[in-house]
Amino acid sequence: MKRAALVAIGDEIVAGLTTDTNSGWLAGELRAVGVEPVAGFAVTDDEDAIARTLERALEEAELVVCTGGLGPTADDLTTACVARLAGRPLVMHEESLAHIKGIFRARGIEMPANNRKQALVPQGCTVIPNPTGTAPGVICPVERGGGTRYVACLPGVPREMRRMAGDTLVPWAAARNPGRRFVSRVFSTFGLAESKLDELLAGVVDPAEARLAFRAAFPRVQARLTVSGAPGEELEGRLDELEARVRERLGTHLYAIGDEGMEETVGRLLRERGMTLAVAESCTGGLIGHRVTDVPGSSAYFLLGVATYSNAAKERVLGVRAHTLREHGAVSTQTAEEMAEGVRRLAGAGLGVSTTGIAGPGGGTAEKPVGTVCIGVAWEGGIWSRRYDVGDRGREWVKGMTAQIALDRVRRHLLGQTEEALSAEAGGVRPA
Amino acid sequence: MKRAALVAIGDEIVAGLTTDTNSGWLAGELRAVGVEPVAGFAVTDDEDAIARTLERALEEAELVVCTGGLGPTADDLTTACVARLAGRPLVMHEESLAHIKGIFRARGIEMPANNRKQALVPQGCTVIPNPTGTAPGVICPVERGGGTRYVACLPGVPREMRRMAGDTLVPWAAARNPGRRFVSRVFSTFGLAESKLDELLAGVVDPAEARLAFRAAFPRVQARLTVSGAPGEELEGRLDELEARVRERLGTHLYAIGDEGMEETVGRLLRERGMTLAVAESCTGGLIGHRVTDVPGSSAYFLLGVATYSNAAKERVLGVRAHTLREHGAVSTQTAEEMAEGVRRLAGAGLGVSTTGIAGPGGGTAEKPVGTVCIGVAWEGGIWSRRYDVGDRGREWVKGMTAQIALDRVRRHLLGQTEEALSAEAGGVRPA
Repeated sequence: MKRAALVAIGDEIVAGLTTDTNSGWLAGELRAVGVEPVAGFAVTDDEDAIARTLERALEEAELVVCTGGLGPTADDLTTACVARLAGRPLVMHEESLAHIKGIFRARGIEMPANNRKQALVPQGCTVIPNPTGTAPGVICPVERGGGTRYVACLPGVPREMRRMAGDTLVPWAAARNPGRRFVSRVFSTFGLAESKLDELLAGVVDPAEARLAFRAAFPRVQARLTVSGAPGEELEGRLDELEARVRERLGTHLYAIGDEGMEETVGRLLRERGMTLAVAESCTGGLIGHRVTDVPGSSAYFLLGVATYSNAAKERVLGVRAHTLREHGAVSTQTAEEMAEGVRRLAGAGLGVSTTGIAGPGGGTAEKPVGTVCIGVAWEGGIWSRRYDVGDRGREWVKGMTAQIALDRVRRHLLGQTEEALSAEAGGVRPA
Repeated sequence: MKRAALVAIGDEIVAGLTTDTNSGWLAGELRAVGVEPVAGFAVTDDEDAIARTLERALEEAELVVCTGGLGPTADDLTTACVARLAGRPLVMHEESLAHIKGIFRARGIEMPANNRKQALVPQGCTVIPNPTGTAPGVICPVERGGGTRYVACLPGVPREMRRMAGDTLVPWAAARNPGRRFVSRVFSTFGLAESKLDELLAGVVDPAEARLAFRAAFPRVQARLTVSGAPGEELEGRLDELEARVRERLGTHLYAIGDEGMEETVGRLLRERGMTLAVAESCTGGLIGHRVTDVPGSSAYFLLGVATYSNAAKERVLGVRAHTLREHGAVSTQTAEEMAEGVRRLAGAGLGVSTTGIAGPGGGTAEKPVGTVCIGVAWEGGIWSRRYDVGDRGREWVKGMTAQIALDRVRRHLLGQTEEALSAEAGGVRPA
């Protein structure tokens, strides 16, 4: 099993109403276990078109992975198409049916009749359980190209798809890979543009010994090292060696090994130090609190978040002085400091962090254009603040970048790092 | 020219290192002028693979639009492939060559020899000028399927591609479109599973007059109606008629026409009524404030968000009584009511909304399992609360669903709807 083809099924994808992110994600995962993605297809919810597309995909690869079209409605045709293609009848998979019924039972309702169809699978296929949703996936053998090839079907919902591919399909494909084993390690950085990361890591690995790839996954930028070898070869040790070299080059821009978010890194550090956190947000509006509380167990260290969008709330809830707001404005390092200290005291927390800025599209001035943000960090006996210009690249960008800088500042504080988080090459972000 | 197929060319797209956004954008533009996108393909920078893919695309559609592979390097093969496919020799397009030379001259450097290749085009094709880059595009006729079909090639750089498609290709396609125009309308709902929506809308449109499609875009579920007709035919009026029927079936589950998020609907209603909002979040941790402030101009009505993760913060900041927390617990309708009223008073807002619940994975009990959440809404002179069971489907799900129910409750309050937001068939969400 050397080659894979990805097929995205759904009218809304072909029509351009939804961007297919499933195929790209699957391509990366399959590539990591040595199955090379060679072609991609997008097809409408039309039975004949799906059949034609699957035949073409099977001409290109030994493994065809489809996403989408496993729902309960009449326009969900994938499983039936695959069964016909494979010349196998659809049979009821009792375990899946029980699982679907169980989901509805847990919701206190009876399973609608059309959900029954989701438990029908081609006879003799491997069923991929769906722990977080109703539709199971399948891996169905088909005789093509003078041998056995496989069509795998997964749901189109990315959350369900990723879980099922990670648990079942990818290990299944890896186990059928004739020889080489691939192991990757991801380095998550913040504060560097992708091109700068490329530059910093130039020559760090010999292309013959490892493959280096980059990926901007807003707001972080990641490098991935992949080494390969025969089964039994010690690949982890080789990665450890390479990691040491990468660490040296990246310094404090490297915040995590692996795909960890900054909120997880910060949570881990707070936990290790027995510290607590409170957050005062203006332009981020709750995003930092949301991210911090996405981490299971965050109630151990996250005491309070306050989103003070109005000046009145900044004064009333956080005790920011009217004088400060009048003299320096709501978007100022002075206000950021009083917000950080205010929320820290209100919550009785060890650390307070704050954001205030102009997310746009309105509200910018010549002196403080859209993208101007101030971050404050307060702790027992000290305070820090800085103004940044993250650029006028849309509301979502300003909020996301500001939240990331704030979390990064908390990380650096907890690590005792006092130097600047963001270099001038930081992809549009710089201290102003 | 009724159908189009999109082909994205490039190793990095097939490998999942770059997400192809060109095909989706082109699909939308072509659809708007009545050319229906029917299939999508992604192919590596391999000559044979590109040729196979173009043949397949030409089986599906009269117009095939490729993006990528027009650069000056050896792995840029698109134009040569298309010329061979069409049986036309490559000829030098002097105007394009002069344009490319001019670009280099303007930069004060001589044109590298390999850029010359970018001005080679299949004989007899239509050239698409590239005002912002070097590579011109082409529209090349090929004899297939018993008539003349067309392969159009555009650069992969989105900025250049969009300009060239908008200026030349899309008007060219529109002018060759014999007739049909397509118009869609999206209905955004909350509180119904996709299968239930399907059931509710069964028979609402005759398949001969319109096409109905469904899409679960967590946490909303959408239906889309598409009608088609000759130019000059009154399609909007037909959609209006169908919309009336859909509205009747969906009742208050329909919260917006179009792709609007619940936070936009709520923002619009608050604005129209001159009302202000304050939010007290426990299990959602800031997500509601984040979503509300994603809407530009939300500072006009969003006064304050408070994420009180600890009991101490609930008491200290919101004035929840120790007695209430002790007798009923943090996750209770009583606490939700005091949080909603507390944040409303603290902010001096017209409306207060609150969430408190168990997001998991830890913290569940037999009486209050993970997924138990309470929502409160407080206004001048009134208060409302309810307990829900959104199901133990992961932290992200519990947070997302709870935020959506809370926003939906605000919407219903502003519309004066007092009946229950969520029916028993609400896809895993029910009043507990």
